[in-house]
Amino acid sequence: MKKRFCLFLTVMCMFLFHTVAMAKTITGRTPKQDGFRMPGEFEEQEQVWMVWPERPDNWRDGGKPAQEVFVNVARAIAKFEPVTMLVSNAQYTNARSRLPDNIRVVEMSNDDAWVRDTGPTFVVNDKGEVRGCDWTFNAWGGLVDGLYFPWDNDDKVAQKICELEGVDRYRTEGFVLEGGSIHVDGEGTLITTEMCLLSKGRNPNMSKKQIEDKLKDYLNVEKVIWIKDGIDPDETNGHVDLVACFVRPGEVACIWTDDPKNPFYDACQAAYKTLSEATDAKGRKLKVWKLTMPKNQVYQKGAETVDHSETSAPRKNGNLCYASYMNFLIVNGGVIVPQYGDENDDLALEQIQEMFPDREVVGVETTEVIYGGGNIHCITQHQPAATR
Amino acid sequence: MKKRFCLFLTVMCMFLFHTVAMAKTITGRTPKQDGFRMPGEFEEQEQVWMVWPERPDNWRDGGKPAQEVFVNVARAIAKFEPVTMLVSNAQYTNARSRLPDNIRVVEMSNDDAWVRDTGPTFVVNDKGEVRGCDWTFNAWGGLVDGLYFPWDNDDKVAQKICELEGVDRYRTEGFVLEGGSIHVDGEGTLITTEMCLLSKGRNPNMSKKQIEDKLKDYLNVEKVIWIKDGIDPDETNGHVDLVACFVRPGEVACIWTDDPKNPFYDACQAAYKTLSEATDAKGRKLKVWKLTMPKNQVYQKGAETVDHSETSAPRKNGNLCYASYMNFLIVNGGVIVPQYGDENDDLALEQIQEMFPDREVVGVETTEVIYGGGNIHCITQHQPAATR
Repeated sequence: MKKRFCLFLTVMCMFLFHTVAMAKTITGRTPKQDGFRMPGEFEEQEQVWMVWPERPDNWRDGGKPAQEVFVNVARAIAKFEPVTMLVSNAQYTNARSRLPDNIRVVEMSNDDAWVRDTGPTFVVNDKGEVRGCDWTFNAWGGLVDGLYFPWDNDDKVAQKICELEGVDRYRTEGFVLEGGSIHVDGEGTLITTEMCLLSKGRNPNMSKKQIEDKLKDYLNVEKVIWIKDGIDPDETNGHVDLVACFVRPGEVACIWTDDPKNPFYDACQAAYKTLSEATDAKGRKLKVWKLTMPKNQVYQKGAETVDHSETSAPRKNGNLCYASYMNFLIVNGGVIVPQYGDENDDLALEQIQEMFPDREVVGVETTEVIYGGGNIHCITQHQPAATR
Repeated sequence: MKKRFCLFLTVMCMFLFHTVAMAKTITGRTPKQDGFRMPGEFEEQEQVWMVWPERPDNWRDGGKPAQEVFVNVARAIAKFEPVTMLVSNAQYTNARSRLPDNIRVVEMSNDDAWVRDTGPTFVVNDKGEVRGCDWTFNAWGGLVDGLYFPWDNDDKVAQKICELEGVDRYRTEGFVLEGGSIHVDGEGTLITTEMCLLSKGRNPNMSKKQIEDKLKDYLNVEKVIWIKDGIDPDETNGHVDLVACFVRPGEVACIWTDDPKNPFYDACQAAYKTLSEATDAKGRKLKVWKLTMPKNQVYQKGAETVDHSETSAPRKNGNLCYASYMNFLIVNGGVIVPQYGDENDDLALEQIQEMFPDREVVGVETTEVIYGGGNIHCITQHQPAATR
């Protein structure tokens, strides 16, 4: 009898959980007021979202080399947890046939493939509920210094993901933010950069204090650690996810080079200094792990095959690309790390393995994604598990 | 301890069931070989799929009156079970804002709103698994006498639904069929019409026997009862779902009128005769319930506001529409029935209530959907529950 009841309960729960996916838009309240917080990326995850790259005015050779790398990244993640690939109708059949069966493919219109910045930032409570924060997205600076126009499809991605999953959604009307510009420890601390969050193209009418308050209200953090600059001023205006990342509460990784000739030397030194001197929301002094930068620089290639367009930033061969190993993704039991065919590739894997001794560290060659303006963390959005 | 284990089991099952949605395409095998069968519509359902109407060359007044009715139908169904509304990117925000929160809205490109015919026909086995049959769709007759061109988005709807839900899919390459042209009793019997399945625009190179064999292989039926004609030769070529329907195994409903002046009098008489004389797969003589036709006819209105187009069949004011109460949808605990403001509306509800004494019968005014070429059953696709 008890066994049967157990089965009944299980089946009922499956049924309810699976089918009654009612997603509502919450206005006039914040996650903090409702007892939700953004968990650390290292906490248990449910799945990872990606968006299929295709726009020929950003990706070289019609996006075909990039698509191959996205498949490799998706495959690497899918060894650890489920992956859903979102794709335009035009590319649906192509994406479906190039991806393995265990990756779900779902149609979704988009303006480009940066779901870290267009997808929802998920928050959780201790009752096992998950909700999404749907920031306003304006292509990293809107009409001031954004990278393409229009961005209306991208701005709807977060809503559509929440709706698909039956996840209630906070629409943070008017507040522009991208997921790549923040990292949290899940215990009240957030790291970000001034270069990005105080940029003129995002929330020019808000003071630093007002921006901090928004982060505190929506992500339920108490302390914001401000790093001054990121490393890609002309692309994301310095997203923190190229610079630093929480390894676990009380510990961060920070990009590093000893070579004063490295173009990112000053940025590394400054970020390391800021993090080394900081204390977190719990008053802990942070342990800072150094993560090497690549030894050699990556420069734009193949720009001659990128479509000319009036509505997207042009690419130019020889321009400095922003190759950082920091743009890794933490998944359940693993870490997926960019590789560039650089002398320091192995060193980066070793250093990350040391930071995450209980996770399998997997490298994926992603130079092609760098050419399009980002890397593994930028092209993925992790959805935390509903745990109690 | 036992309680905890129970909870653990429940949560694990929720997790597994919800996230590991791997959908594969099955080729070289049939549902029958794999032990799957199409259940009767009266069996337990998981959810209902709909597609938002919008094309201005089919629906009058830019589809706005039709959209209002689709909302009413969706609301009526959602009182009994979950509804997912699929919608183009262009109409996503409009559909989302006009539908209540408890209806899931998901982007999906389409050519029109007839998900009964474009969606998968679901099959189940006795292990609690669900799969989809993805028939070839050619807009009810392709280039011979189809209603619009192209239909490539519609032909992908079944695949995309299966993929969304993690349901394995049989792609029945080359075999053209629509869900509205078949009804089954779940115990080996299928009813259909010759007018539709033997039409020149579908499978002209297949014999009646070969078509029967396909139905037997994919739906796991043993007997096909052929009604000669449907009532809408120029639209769906006589879909059975305007003519007859299984109420439960051994019992069918059939359209009926005593009035020889009714334009559907001959079709009613003939269908009734065929069904009354038929035996099902189990050798039972069928009980045939008479379901009244509307007393008055519905004629096309508003065609002057329908966009002119080279690639869709024109609409003309005054043309006879195909109003049948038979195009109802059975849901868990309910039946959703078309109403036309006709003298016989109440009689139809009473007759259907008598057939389904344990279900709540709900009427929805759907004359507007008739103007577009179908009704409640045509614009819905039920997904059976995974039961053991």
